[in-house]
Amino acid sequence: MLEAALAFAEGNRAQALDELKNFLRIPSISTLPEHTPDVRRAAEFLADELRRIGMENVRLIETSGHPLVYADSLHAPGKPTILCYGHYDVQPPDPLDEWLSPPFEPTERNGNIYARGAVDDKGQLWMEVKALEALLKAGPLPVNVRVLSEGEEEVGGEGIATYLREHHEELKCDVALVCDTELFAPDLPTLCVGLRGMIYTEIEVRGARTDLHSGMYGGAAPNPFVALAQVIAKLKDDEGRILIPGIYDGIEAPTAAELEAWKSLPFDEEHYRETEVGSSVLTGEPGYSVLERTWARPTLDVHGMPGGFTGAGAKTVIPAKALAKVSLRLVPGMTPQDTFDKLRSYVATITPKGVSIEVRLIHSGEPVVVGTDNPFIHAATEAMHAVFNKDTVFVRGGGSIPIVGDFARQLHVPAVMMGFGLPDDNLHAPNEKLTSATFTAAQNRSFASCLWRGDESAFQARSLERLEFFKR
Amino acid sequence: MLEAALAFAEGNRAQALDELKNFLRIPSISTLPEHTPDVRRAAEFLADELRRIGMENVRLIETSGHPLVYADSLHAPGKPTILCYGHYDVQPPDPLDEWLSPPFEPTERNGNIYARGAVDDKGQLWMEVKALEALLKAGPLPVNVRVLSEGEEEVGGEGIATYLREHHEELKCDVALVCDTELFAPDLPTLCVGLRGMIYTEIEVRGARTDLHSGMYGGAAPNPFVALAQVIAKLKDDEGRILIPGIYDGIEAPTAAELEAWKSLPFDEEHYRETEVGSSVLTGEPGYSVLERTWARPTLDVHGMPGGFTGAGAKTVIPAKALAKVSLRLVPGMTPQDTFDKLRSYVATITPKGVSIEVRLIHSGEPVVVGTDNPFIHAATEAMHAVFNKDTVFVRGGGSIPIVGDFARQLHVPAVMMGFGLPDDNLHAPNEKLTSATFTAAQNRSFASCLWRGDESAFQARSLERLEFFKR
Repeated sequence: MLEAALAFAEGNRAQALDELKNFLRIPSISTLPEHTPDVRRAAEFLADELRRIGMENVRLIETSGHPLVYADSLHAPGKPTILCYGHYDVQPPDPLDEWLSPPFEPTERNGNIYARGAVDDKGQLWMEVKALEALLKAGPLPVNVRVLSEGEEEVGGEGIATYLREHHEELKCDVALVCDTELFAPDLPTLCVGLRGMIYTEIEVRGARTDLHSGMYGGAAPNPFVALAQVIAKLKDDEGRILIPGIYDGIEAPTAAELEAWKSLPFDEEHYRETEVGSSVLTGEPGYSVLERTWARPTLDVHGMPGGFTGAGAKTVIPAKALAKVSLRLVPGMTPQDTFDKLRSYVATITPKGVSIEVRLIHSGEPVVVGTDNPFIHAATEAMHAVFNKDTVFVRGGGSIPIVGDFARQLHVPAVMMGFGLPDDNLHAPNEKLTSATFTAAQNRSFASCLWRGDESAFQARSLERLEFFKR
Repeated sequence: MLEAALAFAEGNRAQALDELKNFLRIPSISTLPEHTPDVRRAAEFLADELRRIGMENVRLIETSGHPLVYADSLHAPGKPTILCYGHYDVQPPDPLDEWLSPPFEPTERNGNIYARGAVDDKGQLWMEVKALEALLKAGPLPVNVRVLSEGEEEVGGEGIATYLREHHEELKCDVALVCDTELFAPDLPTLCVGLRGMIYTEIEVRGARTDLHSGMYGGAAPNPFVALAQVIAKLKDDEGRILIPGIYDGIEAPTAAELEAWKSLPFDEEHYRETEVGSSVLTGEPGYSVLERTWARPTLDVHGMPGGFTGAGAKTVIPAKALAKVSLRLVPGMTPQDTFDKLRSYVATITPKGVSIEVRLIHSGEPVVVGTDNPFIHAATEAMHAVFNKDTVFVRGGGSIPIVGDFARQLHVPAVMMGFGLPDDNLHAPNEKLTSATFTAAQNRSFASCLWRGDESAFQARSLERLEFFKR
């Protein structure tokens, strides 16, 4: 059946790309209430396509927020069941003025498709859908497949977490395939085996009862932005160390073997600084390498400070309140609740006089380390080797995919995090892109994920040959 | 002629208030480019009214920004010429959700008119216009009057400053009457004889080249908001002292007599804290009274910190840049340029690694102390005494009216700052108001300003009697 599937995929490339562009045109920004109808539209777009390609039981599952999209094809008795996960929501596109082409008008240039969601995660989700389509064209799937896609990954994934908790019996499977990560370098087979967790908080400072004229009251009324700056300056020192008492207690360091492996990764710090970050120097906790700092150490970042006057020009106001959006990334050994408690207690001790401070938890996710010794990771590794003719590197991700922890806790299955983004894809930033060639190649590579043999130990050799073919 | 003028004013009160409301309905927010047409509409509204009441040579004077409105009536040879100043632009109304009635739909309740600009400064400007109207109804004005109104007071007054510099010969006058201040307490005759200056700046911090995903880059990429918070925390200490080196050098303290007089003002610090500021404690430089801190000491305030993610919910971004709107209020002995230079040099020395910082001057104004020993201040004092039957108190203002310095430097005339706002009028804040009774009383009080006798030494006794009449 593979020949037919691959022939269909090959003949269908241009159309698949056009479909992806239509998917990318829907501004499914999950965090902005005004885009709620767009998020639903993206869910329906995905469901329609799953229905069209022949998946069964396709439906939107309502949650307290944005809907889940479910589909299955369960006609391979005795074969493993694979839960394919991806998310159809995207980050907000701002700052808009830094996009070279509109974020929701996918534009091809330099061999890339530029659009919000191109790589995170609509492009990667579409690879899975298109692989399923090609296989279904050729006959029943050789394994059992469930598709479960969410529209709240960028806002904490509350809906899917609740659903997994309440409906885990209906989602029986052997492994979760998560397509939301990246290759460490182009053409370097990569599996992600660890993720940082996070807490995303809002720190709100209140001073005077109402906004005041800074001429009349400057010198007597507390300024909440100054107070907030003083608090933030005490959260992290000039060197990048987090100053919250006890924050580093109990952290589980990577194994010596893992650290050794990271040293052999093709990582050029100077190149990374220049081409990816583009700052004069890299910053962060002294005594740790960049990979340790971004994969295995907690960090604290401020994302924005709403409130007060933010228009053009001048307004001489002492705002009544100021807000900071502050997150911490967590590593194994830390929990969201404990970290939040420590942050809140500490802020209470450093609150400047004249203001009151409230620290609110917006969402959180546990850190995850996936073991590398399960048969699915072995199978994926072998498959990658056959395709790339290189050993797979195991990396961690500095970001958080909260669902991976939920799969482990609720479904008791491991996750294979096999993604095809590239390090310079501008996730969450202006000019997010997906390399067009990656889409084509990865679409076909992801066949492998759907073609586990019954013994779960390796990818079907034949499909790998074909994947190799698509690499050119 | 006075009887006729006063009779007209009395019969015309309701209509004058309606006209003011129409003036207040125009959202002439000078700092927001999208309101440029509204600012011009307000200028034309004012010019039309000046024309209608019989002022001459009424015209809009174009500037590099918003237009000036000019009018005159120069038919009292040998009598002094009074330049009546006010501004027709207003501050932005945000935060909108704290207004109890819409900022540009003037609403009467509790004996007040609530609207943006009610007291600052459309209401006060309208008092002058309505006083001129009533006098003109009764015949030629007893003194020479020029009206010069600007639409950029809230954004630094660049246009009027340039015009005064280039056209001072055409604006010959003996005194400037500035109606943009307040009574120290209801029914307490007050003249403002000093104002703080200011520099309004933007501090822009740049880190990475583009916005980055805080999961992937948190721990390696500089965070401009954290850097900006660290800078701001070093501008002002926990006690409220400004930490910019040399900032307090050369400051001219108020005279012992002035300080003594301030002590006898009806000022209850606890009442001020509770009803005006509404914070748990008052803050500011230790060792100085509230009046000294707000009138005679420099202060530093942060008005807002645009940039990054400011929407609802969560976005996990390390912004490429962050901005803070920071102003300093200046007192005699300080100059805007020197203060700005000291700020900029200091910021350069405390810039955290990994980011670059630019400090930009948005606008500035010199501090001013008006002498109390000129005949116009004497006349105003005598007049106030006759009206209120109380001694006038001399206060300073913590705010800045840059034009007062320009009148002194370009026209070589003193300013009489006679305003009728009240301390709780919510200038620059939500629910700005003007006490309706104040409008009526002050409108008539401001007759006094137009009725200097030829010897410039006192207000016309007869008009004062009439003013007294209007106080009931």
